[in-house]
Amino acid sequence: MQDAQQIIDTAHEMADAARKAILPLFRSSSIITDNKRPEDFDPVTQADRAAEAAMRDVLSRRRPQDGIFGEEFGRTDGDSGLTWILDPIDGTRAFLCGAPSWGVLIGLGDDAGGIRYGLIDQPYLRERFEGGLGRARLVGPDGERALATRQGVTLSGATLMTTFPEIGSSAEAQAFRRVADRVRLTRYGLDCYAYALLALGQVDLVIEAGLQQYDIAGPLAVVEAAGGIVTDWQGGSAAQGGQVIAAASRDLHAQALEMLRG
Amino acid sequence: MQDAQQIIDTAHEMADAARKAILPLFRSSSIITDNKRPEDFDPVTQADRAAEAAMRDVLSRRRPQDGIFGEEFGRTDGDSGLTWILDPIDGTRAFLCGAPSWGVLIGLGDDAGGIRYGLIDQPYLRERFEGGLGRARLVGPDGERALATRQGVTLSGATLMTTFPEIGSSAEAQAFRRVADRVRLTRYGLDCYAYALLALGQVDLVIEAGLQQYDIAGPLAVVEAAGGIVTDWQGGSAAQGGQVIAAASRDLHAQALEMLRG
Repeated sequence: MQDAQQIIDTAHEMADAARKAILPLFRSSSIITDNKRPEDFDPVTQADRAAEAAMRDVLSRRRPQDGIFGEEFGRTDGDSGLTWILDPIDGTRAFLCGAPSWGVLIGLGDDAGGIRYGLIDQPYLRERFEGGLGRARLVGPDGERALATRQGVTLSGATLMTTFPEIGSSAEAQAFRRVADRVRLTRYGLDCYAYALLALGQVDLVIEAGLQQYDIAGPLAVVEAAGGIVTDWQGGSAAQGGQVIAAASRDLHAQALEMLRG
Repeated sequence: MQDAQQIIDTAHEMADAARKAILPLFRSSSIITDNKRPEDFDPVTQADRAAEAAMRDVLSRRRPQDGIFGEEFGRTDGDSGLTWILDPIDGTRAFLCGAPSWGVLIGLGDDAGGIRYGLIDQPYLRERFEGGLGRARLVGPDGERALATRQGVTLSGATLMTTFPEIGSSAEAQAFRRVADRVRLTRYGLDCYAYALLALGQVDLVIEAGLQQYDIAGPLAVVEAAGGIVTDWQGGSAAQGGQVIAAASRDLHAQALEMLRG
């Protein structure tokens, strides 16, 4: 990609701006929430909106030619063939609990439906997971570390992460259970941080359902750059969200997909 | 307590030693595990043992008169009437997944069954939650912050944390569900970090079962120092572990306890 370095610099500037907008509100006692759909308990925080606004501000200055699709403020057209896909706070429930497993998600999609580049940023941990355009790395408080998924783990030895039992239809939960019953260990509730741990070689599978495009674009780029496989439950593209399976290796992906299909 | 300052200094030196022992192994690829009871998947890491040994070494130098009860190396008698209750890594499964929700737990019990003082330390986050002997504070990368549980939240507005659905009998899970069905939000899988977030005023309830004494001693001191209530499911002492409920306020504790009893 011709302007790869400029894209990367822009993404980091966006993530920096989001950190600055969010951190003063994390664990503050004055968080204002309102529910978009009260029946689903989908809280939106001041921080969510401030962070997306801050990222859009960076884009309007640095890359006004690109499109934007953000969780909070929807779609803005561009004419470059590239679209920034933004989830200012993935894991708002974790955020509201004070748990540092939420993240700022930035993905860069192209007109062919591919994801070229992405970030998972955890402001409180000062961790930034980056993948695509030749990069696969974590930059954190202890310095830089290459991202690489764990190879050679089979289903019976795998660690699985998910947001179930909270999310998904009953049929989806059953499919999920078929996989969970075969793995060594299942852990719950880490939102986007599960994909970060997959890219870091710490867990082997992430299985979710009901995702939006902005939930998966950034994580997809990071996991694939680290050597992992991310698809939907039919083995097709996961870039649009929905039912997603991310695996550390091709073999493990195939084994888990077979169980998911039943 | 006469030697409160010396006890506090000793506890911090122990937590420092545990951090030093554990951190090189966190997210390393060379973690050696063996299962004490393979059927329960209760992994023990090198880090667990190294950390308890390091804490015992501090005690043998600074307070040889005190007893010790540690998860890894059992009981050591003392004659001071005080016993240090140690869980070098609470949340070994989180540890093995690379998720920073595990913690080093240090509690100081007396012969009457009370817990005088405790720490929850999260080495990777550089967060130390401290309660008892006149203290109730978090010291972290952003400095010091007073611990205080959130007051005035009723059951229907409460956030509940637990390690269920993983732990507990089916009757315990049912009792848990009676509470979970009444609260605003339930989150899973944070181990000791749930108590830290309760003490920090971020969540309102923690309900667990099947705890050991070393799982709860440190958290109990921290939560009570922050203004919370920690009991068993009958409203009695939780210092021995078992079924534990921790609540941000007396009213909320009473409401949740009624639901638990069915």
